[in-house]
Amino acid sequence: MKPFVVLSTDFGLKDGAVCSVTGVIKSIDPEIEIYNLTHEVTKFCTWTASYRLYQSMPFWPKGTIFISVVDPGVGTPRRACVAKTSNGYYVVTPDNGSLTLVKEKFGIDEVREIDETRNRLVGAGTDDVAIFHGRDLFGYCGGKLAAGKIDFEGVGPKYPVDEIVTIPFPEAVIKPGCAEGNVAMICPNFGCVGTNIDYQSFVKAGFSLGDTVNVLVKHCDEVKFEGPVLFHRSFGYVAKGEPILYNNELNWLDLSLNEQNMGETYGISYGPEWTIRIWK
Amino acid sequence: MKPFVVLSTDFGLKDGAVCSVTGVIKSIDPEIEIYNLTHEVTKFCTWTASYRLYQSMPFWPKGTIFISVVDPGVGTPRRACVAKTSNGYYVVTPDNGSLTLVKEKFGIDEVREIDETRNRLVGAGTDDVAIFHGRDLFGYCGGKLAAGKIDFEGVGPKYPVDEIVTIPFPEAVIKPGCAEGNVAMICPNFGCVGTNIDYQSFVKAGFSLGDTVNVLVKHCDEVKFEGPVLFHRSFGYVAKGEPILYNNELNWLDLSLNEQNMGETYGISYGPEWTIRIWK
Amino acid sequence: MKPFVVLSTDFGLKDGAVCSVTGVIKSIDPEIEIYNLTHEVTKFCTWTASYRLYQSMPFWPKGTIFISVVDPGVGTPRRACVAKTSNGYYVVTPDNGSLTLVKEKFGIDEVREIDETRNRLVGAGTDDVAIFHGRDLFGYCGGKLAAGKIDFEGVGPKYPVDEIVTIPFPEAVIKPGCAEGNVAMICPNFGCVGTNIDYQSFVKAGFSLGDTVNVLVKHCDEVKFEGPVLFHRSFGYVAKGEPILYNNELNWLDLSLNEQNMGETYGISYGPEWTIRIWK
Repeated sequence: MKPFVVLSTDFGLKDGAVCSVTGVIKSIDPEIEIYNLTHEVTKFCTWTASYRLYQSMPFWPKGTIFISVVDPGVGTPRRACVAKTSNGYYVVTPDNGSLTLVKEKFGIDEVREIDETRNRLVGAGTDDVAIFHGRDLFGYCGGKLAAGKIDFEGVGPKYPVDEIVTIPFPEAVIKPGCAEGNVAMICPNFGCVGTNIDYQSFVKAGFSLGDTVNVLVKHCDEVKFEGPVLFHRSFGYVAKGEPILYNNELNWLDLSLNEQNMGETYGISYGPEWTIRIWK
Repeated sequence: MKPFVVLSTDFGLKDGAVCSVTGVIKSIDPEIEIYNLTHEVTKFCTWTASYRLYQSMPFWPKGTIFISVVDPGVGTPRRACVAKTSNGYYVVTPDNGSLTLVKEKFGIDEVREIDETRNRLVGAGTDDVAIFHGRDLFGYCGGKLAAGKIDFEGVGPKYPVDEIVTIPFPEAVIKPGCAEGNVAMICPNFGCVGTNIDYQSFVKAGFSLGDTVNVLVKHCDEVKFEGPVLFHRSFGYVAKGEPILYNNELNWLDLSLNEQNMGETYGISYGPEWTIRIWK
Repeated sequence: MKPFVVLSTDFGLKDGAVCSVTGVIKSIDPEIEIYNLTHEVTKFCTWTASYRLYQSMPFWPKGTIFISVVDPGVGTPRRACVAKTSNGYYVVTPDNGSLTLVKEKFGIDEVREIDETRNRLVGAGTDDVAIFHGRDLFGYCGGKLAAGKIDFEGVGPKYPVDEIVTIPFPEAVIKPGCAEGNVAMICPNFGCVGTNIDYQSFVKAGFSLGDTVNVLVKHCDEVKFEGPVLFHRSFGYVAKGEPILYNNELNWLDLSLNEQNMGETYGISYGPEWTIRIWK
């Protein structure tokens, strides 16, 4: 059985872009099954692209090929690559930060730059097109890899894993009775505020399910949320609209409102400037 | 051939949640084909979840397994179940109202509570996670059922069909020359106002295609729309922007504007408080 | 192997419509693989429907069957048809303009009107429904064609290709040092302004990558954008927020802002009333 291909982009689903990429892969080998991660990655945001890969990759069968295209530098001399991850997957992507959390959390065994002379779609009216590498380069190269028409070595020349572009992000500091971290993501659907504070470490630092803790969220020096919050298993342990702190699906702490959008309600976003402090 | 799995949630398509569920199922058995009903069910609204199942289920091959997750009570002690419907399908879902229209319109032959000790994903960093049963419980259990790794009995213990949670909804009253019902749904795309008035009964009550009828839509005591409306086959029998009454795809009457959004234009929503009266 | 079916509609993905269409096809033949072009075609806009087909069709394997349903006239006496294109595909669609760019760019060898007496879903509660041909007629007929249960002749009677409904659209005029055309599309995701000015002809008219050219965009007589713009390969050759002129994925010129939405920023839309002039 051929490996699955999973697509992730910021192309949206309103035009024909994703369908064109899918068609290119099916034209290489009609047996390849193609699934979508999301096509609503925050536009031009390679941090979010890396977060989406981190979030869903390990639940797929080993060998699955992820094609992740958030590519503001398309057509300029940034590297296009395929990374082989230490947990058994491939990522076909511009090397622009989208591998950040994949490298940090799963590790990357080897990375190769895509050789455009061999692994780019030619003809089909695409030769003068420089703005759609999702279709003409990443889709085409990922499809060839999935079809077995090239092996990993056939992608192009290897380069040092150390040269992979990553986005700096602070690490959380967890001490007995106190945790300080950052907001790493806002759930675009429910508005949950995702932190980079590891749940298991937090529990080891003396916090227990059922505790009411103090929480402070700031953007630089501006307080965005402050108050006591119940730390428990899930949303339904507080009344609707009340705040709750819980372990999210990635084993990071999440701060949320039950059946209400925390990010919007308090105007909270994510990144190194957004800090969260939790203490007894 | 394995049964198809069809997913319906309120997770949206902007993050990695649906992709994680899909990966869990593919990891159980790569041969299972997975399709999406929708991932834009009105957030936390189990009535809408049941409506979406009712709307699309009977068009799928018998044996198809629907995994329907709108689950505001995730991680609290509500039941997780698999229902076997009288028209030949399975629904894997929290028992929180999402089976309402399935039970009423198609019937449920048997229902079983999911045994979490056997049918929950373990390892993979999911053991301490209580907020993503779509991935860890419903997706995993539905995948095992689709793969034939468990049969229906293997889901867990049977419980009485009478105990299934359903949402009370008024029934329409149709008399010669007059029908009184409720707004059951607003089409989230075109804004059509869907009623619970059965088309065939309406015709038997003396209404004919081509008739102009009186229509009154109210929210509690407040009039939202009132006026004469043509009852005909489809939108195009009136000018753009004009109201039209017609048989919708579920054989319920719909009130709409031709090429315009009726729900938004008149501020109409759905539920027991929203009534519609149609008379000669 | 069976041909793929690719769906394109303005139904959105929020309700059960697309899932119902998919189920109908899978019920005809569970082996048919179904992919989505988009379900967010601008509502009721058959020009956009034709643009989406033009944009993605040639990247699919020959024989692929596109079911394209933007159908404001559903249930009225407009033709329902299947077109056989000169580049080797089928399009199942209301004949209401959705074939415009397919006919102009790829050619149509033959077109047949769908015989509703043989190729419409019957039973399943659909007999009195006139408003969902996507499910009951186009989906069903396209599924039968994909399954090989009918051949192209089995669709229904042939009619002259000349009778296919097309939407008039001006042609660009390209002379040495000057090009005058129209805005043919706004990218619904990134806001790029897509013209009908052919890239290769533009280059032959004396424009070179790296040139700074004059650009004027008007709605009727109203100027919407005016100024010097760099003509180059891709977005990243200008600073963020700056305008850029480049070859788009269809070999038409696109006008855009780097990492910013040009259509929204300047209030630009598309159609015969929207003109663009580019000169040295």
